[in-house]
Amino acid sequence: MNDLTARVRAFAEERDWQQFHKPKNLVMALAGEVGELVAEFQWLTPEQAGAVMDDAEAGARVRAEIGDVMIYLTRLADVLDIDLEEAALAKLTEVAVRYPAEKVRGSAAKR
Amino acid sequence: MNDLTARVRAFAEERDWQQFHKPKNLVMALAGEVGELVAEFQWLTPEQAGAVMDDAEAGARVRAEIGDVMIYLTRLADVLDIDLEEAALAKLTEVAVRYPAEKVRGSAAKR
Amino acid sequence: MNDLTARVRAFAEERDWQQFHKPKNLVMALAGEVGELVAEFQWLTPEQAGAVMDDAEAGARVRAEIGDVMIYLTRLADVLDIDLEEAALAKLTEVAVRYPAEKVRGSAAKR
Amino acid sequence: MNDLTARVRAFAEERDWQQFHKPKNLVMALAGEVGELVAEFQWLTPEQAGAVMDDAEAGARVRAEIGDVMIYLTRLADVLDIDLEEAALAKLTEVAVRYPAEKVRGSAAKR
Repeated sequence: MNDLTARVRAFAEERDWQQFHKPKNLVMALAGEVGELVAEFQWLTPEQAGAVMDDAEAGARVRAEIGDVMIYLTRLADVLDIDLEEAALAKLTEVAVRYPAEKVRGSAAKR
Repeated sequence: MNDLTARVRAFAEERDWQQFHKPKNLVMALAGEVGELVAEFQWLTPEQAGAVMDDAEAGARVRAEIGDVMIYLTRLADVLDIDLEEAALAKLTEVAVRYPAEKVRGSAAKR
Repeated sequence: MNDLTARVRAFAEERDWQQFHKPKNLVMALAGEVGELVAEFQWLTPEQAGAVMDDAEAGARVRAEIGDVMIYLTRLADVLDIDLEEAALAKLTEVAVRYPAEKVRGSAAKR
Repeated sequence: MNDLTARVRAFAEERDWQQFHKPKNLVMALAGEVGELVAEFQWLTPEQAGAVMDDAEAGARVRAEIGDVMIYLTRLADVLDIDLEEAALAKLTEVAVRYPAEKVRGSAAKR
């Protein structure tokens, strides 16, 4: 178990929040936080979005929202006993087969 | 930069996908993947959701969706030059002040 | 064009917000509002969620969030020149073929 | 009750799906469908997104996804006994006070 997983778990246990941290609830909490992150970007042009971290206030909000998303994703994975990094690497390997570099270069089309 | 960040970045560069991997687009891709994860849980009772990893097929789908969410979250953080773990720990520290354990124990109320 | 569509359009035009109300942005705004709606329900048990409208404060928040979701969905459909009710009825007809009542009764399995 | 609400309710009852159509589940289903809608737009430039309905295939997918979102939003409102159009109009009135046209013209800043 990595450090972040342990810290988030301790945070929940100290508050007796295991009763709320059930998979269905955590998936919803994750979706709610992603919604807040999306809202930070919704009215920005692609150019403004690309420079968002140069703005101290907006950059701090984006960083905080990404932190929130990571906290709930970490907690959800912990509760489901999934290793987040392993799950991502396994999926990346699978996607690499479906999207061979030489066939999809420069294209965003779904396969 | 950790290993997963490097792997996801290489995956994108080998496919010349940096042109698509702009913050606004990646935030949307993240939201889309979270939507797929939510869909895995939508009709489950809390009990069924709690046992989802015991079902080989549903468990594999959940793991794959969590992998997808982590991939896009990692990529988004990389493009914005945010350290995911640091952002999560910083936010956790901030939330710990707003929700002192002795005051919020056992309560899910917002503060 | 129905009344709500006209009212939302006028609201945007009076504020010169057509420049922001582009499809990609509106889809994100919709996702952001749905995230807020999800957050209202995330820590509730199914029983509490079923009685949420009996609580004056929580009920008012849920109603307001559903109003927000409907506003952005209406605006998005208007900008894309889609009739919301027609699109829903067309999809319902299509889904009825894929999920014949006699075959799927009482089952939430995907087809 | 309008026609669409009645049609969606009948669709659910014919399949004995009331047992699944609980508020928490429907909110999740709504979020899942919005995720699919977001995915249709994620890699498009603002210009491509603005012309998406001119593409027969992509346009049909967007229309179908918007139909799905409207179906679940209608069903959720029905189950919570909320009038969708009234909720949207009430919220619009409230937002009009917070964002007076003469003060916010041409600005996307939050108030």
